Amino acid sequence: MIIVMKPKASQEQLDHLIEKIKSLGFSVNISKGKERTVIGVIGEEDKLRVQPLEAFPGVEKVMSVLKPYKLISREFHPENAIIDINGARFGSTDICMIAGPCSVESLEQIRTVAAAIKKLGGKLIRGGAFKPRTSPYAFQGLGEQGLKYLAQIREEFGLAIVTEVMDTRDVELVGKYADAFQIGARNMQNFNLLKEVGATKKPVFLKRGLSATYKEFLMSAEYIASRGNFNVILVERGIRTFEDYTRNTLDITAVPVLKQFTYLPVVIDPSHAAGRRELLEPLSKAAVAVGADGLMLEVHPCPEEALSDGQQQIVPERYKEILESLQSIANAVGRKIV
Amino acid sequence: MIIVMKPKASQEQLDHLIEKIKSLGFSVNISKGKERTVIGVIGEEDKLRVQPLEAFPGVEKVMSVLKPYKLISREFHPENAIIDINGARFGSTDICMIAGPCSVESLEQIRTVAAAIKKLGGKLIRGGAFKPRTSPYAFQGLGEQGLKYLAQIREEFGLAIVTEVMDTRDVELVGKYADAFQIGARNMQNFNLLKEVGATKKPVFLKRGLSATYKEFLMSAEYIASRGNFNVILVERGIRTFEDYTRNTLDITAVPVLKQFTYLPVVIDPSHAAGRRELLEPLSKAAVAVGADGLMLEVHPCPEEALSDGQQQIVPERYKEILESLQSIANAVGRKIV
Amino acid sequence: MIIVMKPKASQEQLDHLIEKIKSLGFSVNISKGKERTVIGVIGEEDKLRVQPLEAFPGVEKVMSVLKPYKLISREFHPENAIIDINGARFGSTDICMIAGPCSVESLEQIRTVAAAIKKLGGKLIRGGAFKPRTSPYAFQGLGEQGLKYLAQIREEFGLAIVTEVMDTRDVELVGKYADAFQIGARNMQNFNLLKEVGATKKPVFLKRGLSATYKEFLMSAEYIASRGNFNVILVERGIRTFEDYTRNTLDITAVPVLKQFTYLPVVIDPSHAAGRRELLEPLSKAAVAVGADGLMLEVHPCPEEALSDGQQQIVPERYKEILESLQSIANAVGRKIV
Amino acid sequence: MIIVMKPKASQEQLDHLIEKIKSLGFSVNISKGKERTVIGVIGEEDKLRVQPLEAFPGVEKVMSVLKPYKLISREFHPENAIIDINGARFGSTDICMIAGPCSVESLEQIRTVAAAIKKLGGKLIRGGAFKPRTSPYAFQGLGEQGLKYLAQIREEFGLAIVTEVMDTRDVELVGKYADAFQIGARNMQNFNLLKEVGATKKPVFLKRGLSATYKEFLMSAEYIASRGNFNVILVERGIRTFEDYTRNTLDITAVPVLKQFTYLPVVIDPSHAAGRRELLEPLSKAAVAVGADGLMLEVHPCPEEALSDGQQQIVPERYKEILESLQSIANAVGRKIV
Repeated sequence: MIIVMKPKASQEQLDHLIEKIKSLGFSVNISKGKERTVIGVIGEEDKLRVQPLEAFPGVEKVMSVLKPYKLISREFHPENAIIDINGARFGSTDICMIAGPCSVESLEQIRTVAAAIKKLGGKLIRGGAFKPRTSPYAFQGLGEQGLKYLAQIREEFGLAIVTEVMDTRDVELVGKYADAFQIGARNMQNFNLLKEVGATKKPVFLKRGLSATYKEFLMSAEYIASRGNFNVILVERGIRTFEDYTRNTLDITAVPVLKQFTYLPVVIDPSHAAGRRELLEPLSKAAVAVGADGLMLEVHPCPEEALSDGQQQIVPERYKEILESLQSIANAVGRKIV
Repeated sequence: MIIVMKPKASQEQLDHLIEKIKSLGFSVNISKGKERTVIGVIGEEDKLRVQPLEAFPGVEKVMSVLKPYKLISREFHPENAIIDINGARFGSTDICMIAGPCSVESLEQIRTVAAAIKKLGGKLIRGGAFKPRTSPYAFQGLGEQGLKYLAQIREEFGLAIVTEVMDTRDVELVGKYADAFQIGARNMQNFNLLKEVGATKKPVFLKRGLSATYKEFLMSAEYIASRGNFNVILVERGIRTFEDYTRNTLDITAVPVLKQFTYLPVVIDPSHAAGRRELLEPLSKAAVAVGADGLMLEVHPCPEEALSDGQQQIVPERYKEILESLQSIANAVGRKIV
Repeated sequence: MIIVMKPKASQEQLDHLIEKIKSLGFSVNISKGKERTVIGVIGEEDKLRVQPLEAFPGVEKVMSVLKPYKLISREFHPENAIIDINGARFGSTDICMIAGPCSVESLEQIRTVAAAIKKLGGKLIRGGAFKPRTSPYAFQGLGEQGLKYLAQIREEFGLAIVTEVMDTRDVELVGKYADAFQIGARNMQNFNLLKEVGATKKPVFLKRGLSATYKEFLMSAEYIASRGNFNVILVERGIRTFEDYTRNTLDITAVPVLKQFTYLPVVIDPSHAAGRRELLEPLSKAAVAVGADGLMLEVHPCPEEALSDGQQQIVPERYKEILESLQSIANAVGRKIV
Repeated sequence: MIIVMKPKASQEQLDHLIEKIKSLGFSVNISKGKERTVIGVIGEEDKLRVQPLEAFPGVEKVMSVLKPYKLISREFHPENAIIDINGARFGSTDICMIAGPCSVESLEQIRTVAAAIKKLGGKLIRGGAFKPRTSPYAFQGLGEQGLKYLAQIREEFGLAIVTEVMDTRDVELVGKYADAFQIGARNMQNFNLLKEVGATKKPVFLKRGLSATYKEFLMSAEYIASRGNFNVILVERGIRTFEDYTRNTLDITAVPVLKQFTYLPVVIDPSHAAGRRELLEPLSKAAVAVGADGLMLEVHPCPEEALSDGQQQIVPERYKEILESLQSIANAVGRKIV
């Protein structure tokens, strides 16, 4: 921890602060420059970080040297985590596809998609039974009935189920049906929800919040890990910027940056990033090339009839074409689509 | 609803879309320009909005004409809502102060602040018992013990209690102690939580999400109202931008814009917006001048010892000075600080 | 300057860097923590800042301690600069109004506005002869003819002229007619233009760029000062954010922050910030309360006929009302509108 | 053009507006909904766009139907423009590399890089002689001497020269030496500079402004084209967002979106986007996969000695490795690196 004093900080202010720091068991290294004094604090930064040092008189700013997350940090785990869901190995050389409709709408709808995914060699299917919708008047999902349809699909096609949980009260219920939880972007800092899925052992797809920094995103993963669940897969799904032609702005750089900071897998969701189906193919290609460990794509048998996000879903035939276009890029980077 | 077709949309695509629209009970007004066709759809826009019209082939974009919220809309309630909490009348000519520490840390701490607020004529006190913290290792609040301290303060000083609820499972518990709920910025789109506080009758201070548009903010208020609770007070607390010298960027324009769109009161929280205590006085002055219905300010007996947000909290003496500086501006705009 | 090494930086990397720093005439203070080494560099930071220290192997980040601007810094000039233009004293207790149309369109148009401003006691008038327009097909300004109309107005009404210069080649020409230059937001980092107006003695209204940080804004003012012209007035005119209901987002906090960093005056332009005339009154009130040294407002005799920015201009009658509403707030903060 | 009236707009307001529209030679299509009236205006939208319709009483918003650029629009040029610079064909199946140092610092420095580029089969070299720097105290480039060094390099190695012009007064001078102009991000809306390079026939690399929307970016290209120069190559180089770990946020989606709107080539500059050399390889791979027509990469013989942007430049050996890693991805998408 480095503390920069204001240019006119008095000796009393400096002494008061140093006394406090020493009383907490830290040692200091004081560097008096021509214009201001800088204090280097030596000791376990984690313990100091919770102190309101910026509130002391005479302090201009406090700068952390270490990262605030540990359990999920690449520093302590040089090797990639490999999270296996139904044979799809996230974090390996596999590039794992998670396809399926935005919402589960009927058994027939989800069966049609499941059959297509299965035929294309897929191992996972996604679909929401509980839907976070901006408007209280929009379709809110089928709830437990949707989960039951998903369970039926798993039985029939052997696909693993990825589905969203958005309420701490539903973690147990959703956990009964799902093979992996999804935490949506709007819940990335719903800390109690993170703790609850952290108390299970099921893999969690954690979506980046609309305006979450890398650090905040990683801290939310750390929340889950701090409860004992290390099976966290990070999902970049676009951030909010001034550009509104696309639904969000895909931050493709998140992949190499996050993989540098953490040993957890990183997946890209181009459907939510772009919000426009004609962009899915180029963005998926970029995702594979940049090093993503997987892709989430919205596939619906008839987007014109979709109860949510129709404009960004693609039909199974189009999904097949995109998959095919990705194979050669995956090969070029020494990986394979599963 | 207005639908703009692509320049090369075919007659078949146009017919297919119009057929769908008519089958839903709407009528259309077709305007064929030189380069593209525009369809005006006539009928109840709310019912059409849930249809994925953008998913139809040939459609370039779909533009709403009406606002997607109704219950809280100024259009339907030309008069301000007046929400009375312990005699502070939000939405009237009162400018209502909500002061208190970021977190309840001990009975002594909260008593000291309560005594100061009471002495200055305050009617409300804020303080968090459940704290949403970015890090799992940071102080998470005293929980129910904190609520009990708050209840004791109410008993002793007659102040109404404003405190945060961040979990659907805690709404009942917090509701037992609080006079008003606070929904934090990170939970602005925790839709189930909105529904739960919407099912009570207690006033709700709803904070704007870090990257929420005005429309999204209002839709979250509509969620609460849609369950029958119209006692919603909107809180502008800064948005996330590229500028990081301040914790967030106070969007002061939100006050006149929101008050134009909704009849609900709008309050400003300069403490979270700025994150720096030396900015609280000028921002509070601006808030009063721009027409805010109240101010949330963080006051702590000893910010150096605070367990959260030390750098943005002020001591009661400083709070007193700020209050005094606001009175003349309040007078200038025909209002009074309470 | 503080240099944080990577956790696995080798001793060779450390030695190589320290040798370089010492060879430049600086001394170092090395602080070895458990996990990484931090180097404090002592000496004139300005000289070190131009070195690409981040390019050295083993370096994680380089943190500046001092501010990168000097000439305009509050640290070196505790007293406000007072910049007098035609008796309006920016930086004093005056709150100086700069009103006028977006563009000079005709002699009659600018005369009408000038007469109104004069009658209301104004001392300055603004109006663009060279217009930076997003589209090449939009009205680009009257050029020198517009400047001549402005000169005529000055003659007739005794108002000082504030007008934009957007090309290094026009500085001399515009300088012949103008009492003060305006540098538009899109030219805030047109560094050669800054140097050219820096080589004159005329006051410069420097508008903040759409996505300029405080530091970048101040560095642009430093550019002008570095050529000898200290008569710089900073203009906050809204920044670009995700919210697009308003044209930009007024960053009202810029006023107290900038005034803390620099001794130069700071003015607010609510017309460009909001882009909607109904918001001008509340935002102007907030600007006065927050401590702005002046206000730029667009006034046009007939906004329906305006050749640019019609929707944000107000008629002289409305301008008069706004002025009146500001007086009592100015009084409340011990200032007066001029 | 579509005009939405306010819910309480009067018949007089409607009539007044329609009269104005008709007087301009347009016809209208009026659609009276239950709550508000919508006017469709039929005729050449370009001519109407310059009218301040939003300034008319009773108008809520005005929505354009057509795009405001024409000359560079894909609609009117279904085929890609192919811009040939020294045999590198931008817009063809070539993926054209533009490598070189941030600044020209000495003949020796630029020769070393040129030799490396030549050996790797490159056809272009970039290097700045005029440098836009945030600080007036930073290295501002060698000016004409730098251009002379570049000319010498061209002579010796047969590489085409891409170099920045930042002042209207320098267009002729830079044009004497350069094979292609570069317009920097901070000058994307320096409209007079756009006009000046538009009056030449030389290719222009136009960089996207830090907070420019796609539309604004395209309008700046339209400025150049409107003067007769259609040889414009768009460069995505990262936008400003809330995330500051990287210098900017690469908006990779810009490539497919821009190519949908315009027939001009689109290039990616990962060096400025990331500002960190370890990210260049993954981002370059993503750029190739997404469909970019070229890549700009900063290469310096010794980044530790660089006079600007040391942390984002790579040595020639590393550049060679990156080039090699891109070939197989280029093949996978049916293109080749040149």
